Amino acid sequence: MQKVVSLAALTLALAAGHVAAEPLTPEEQILTRQAGYSFMSWNMGKIKANLDGEFSPTQVSAAANAIAGIANSGMGALYGPGTDKDIGDVKTRVKPELFTNQEKVGEVAVGFIEAANNMAEVAAMAESKEDVQEAFGKLGESCKACHKEFRKD
Amino acid sequence: MQKVVSLAALTLALAAGHVAAEPLTPEEQILTRQAGYSFMSWNMGKIKANLDGEFSPTQVSAAANAIAGIANSGMGALYGPGTDKDIGDVKTRVKPELFTNQEKVGEVAVGFIEAANNMAEVAAMAESKEDVQEAFGKLGESCKACHKEFRKD
Repeated sequence: MQKVVSLAALTLALAAGHVAAEPLTPEEQILTRQAGYSFMSWNMGKIKANLDGEFSPTQVSAAANAIAGIANSGMGALYGPGTDKDIGDVKTRVKPELFTNQEKVGEVAVGFIEAANNMAEVAAMAESKEDVQEAFGKLGESCKACHKEFRKD
Repeated sequence: MQKVVSLAALTLALAAGHVAAEPLTPEEQILTRQAGYSFMSWNMGKIKANLDGEFSPTQVSAAANAIAGIANSGMGALYGPGTDKDIGDVKTRVKPELFTNQEKVGEVAVGFIEAANNMAEVAAMAESKEDVQEAFGKLGESCKACHKEFRKD
């Protein structure tokens, strides 16, 4: 089960460039954030398949832990300067607003991380589809909330 | 902190095609596993940067949780039929041995997952570099053990 991060710790983690990592190029930042979203998407698909078919608590919990682990990893650091538009073959669907509307970014990011942590906590105890249905719905909504604001179609 | 998976649960999760997910195409499987490795690599880099520079227990623990979450997500399902070689522009460095030497695959996979879980557990309690140095070294070795056997240079 993931630890619930405090708002203060979260804000710190989301401050682009704040993470003391080996510096990634803008291209690498775009590719790495896309890798994170792709991997979360695969795990969302697995949870959905469990809700549509046979339910494996172990698989759903593992998928939820992967999503929460990625969500809490400080992906804000992957939106550094120069990552706001395509770089050659490295394409991004991010809208410019993500780099200017910090208040809204914080809001959707906090909503997403809270929903991901809640999903991981609920899934760790779940025995049936009914137990995770609501948490999964909220998590999906939190994904869409960011896509709607900050991702081009 | 991640739950430690049992060997039985792990073997199940690693059985390619066993995961009841929405079916991914072979191309999607290759891209999704690469996404997982890329995202783990970024988090390994962050932990390394913390060991080389200023140490943030919060960041190291978050990075370790992301790695453990991905490691436990059942990536064996991303090595399905047809994913053993390049598919058009979708390139893979996997060696054919990964699809035939199940015993060695199990060994390196178990070693990696145990090392990732250990790193997450150690990082959750860590206060200094010294506390995570050994666990991080072991985790790096478990990555290399698989690369050596199953990844082309």
